[in-house]
Amino acid sequence: MNFLDEVPWDQHGLIAAVAQDATTARVLTVAWMNRDALKQSVETGEAVYWSRSRKRLWRKGEESGHVQRIVELRLDCDADALLIQVEQVGGIACHTGRERCFFRKLEDGRWVTTDPVLKDPALIYRK
Amino acid sequence: MNFLDEVPWDQHGLIAAVAQDATTARVLTVAWMNRDALKQSVETGEAVYWSRSRKRLWRKGEESGHVQRIVELRLDCDADALLIQVEQVGGIACHTGRERCFFRKLEDGRWVTTDPVLKDPALIYRK
Repeated sequence: MNFLDEVPWDQHGLIAAVAQDATTARVLTVAWMNRDALKQSVETGEAVYWSRSRKRLWRKGEESGHVQRIVELRLDCDADALLIQVEQVGGIACHTGRERCFFRKLEDGRWVTTDPVLKDPALIYRK
Repeated sequence: MNFLDEVPWDQHGLIAAVAQDATTARVLTVAWMNRDALKQSVETGEAVYWSRSRKRLWRKGEESGHVQRIVELRLDCDADALLIQVEQVGGIACHTGRERCFFRKLEDGRWVTTDPVLKDPALIYRK
């Protein structure tokens, strides 16, 4: 697919991917895609990332069910970041059971947790 | 500053920083910060990034005047990305003269430019 060739994958073959809730406009997650991840994301209509820690493709929600359905995909000017508008299934994007990963806010020189846990991760990831 | 020590800077000493317009909620830019950039951003209240191409600190808007005033700063769960709510001075974040860097949208397998140039870059960057 031609659009894949227009992404100047970094030295690790990756690009940063920002997922934004298409309804609330909240920024939910920042993750990484390689060529296969972007290809599969477009083909399936659901976000597939490259897990740098697990070193494998990671279909968002594969364990939790918290799939990200892609509404829109955008590329930035120097093509080193993707912006994905998503419908966040379950309303929980973070593995901590919160809506979004950005649940810590800088206040008076400290990172303060401001967002509630919506669901106990032990209940999300039971195998 | 203690909060700087909680950021696990990557192998290049950087963290990805997503700037979102605090008013429109549009994602404007993705750039990079090193320790000094984040420190100066917090101290000055305006976004300072690390330019990977120029290999130096880059106070956003230093040439264009399109400064990003910081409204809120957030850190994600695994601390590999920052989310910055900003007031985008001039309403233009992209060096192409557009509101945001994400002006290309994937449509039928092609990246299609959807956003208009608001101001000719030649008029923004005249030295």
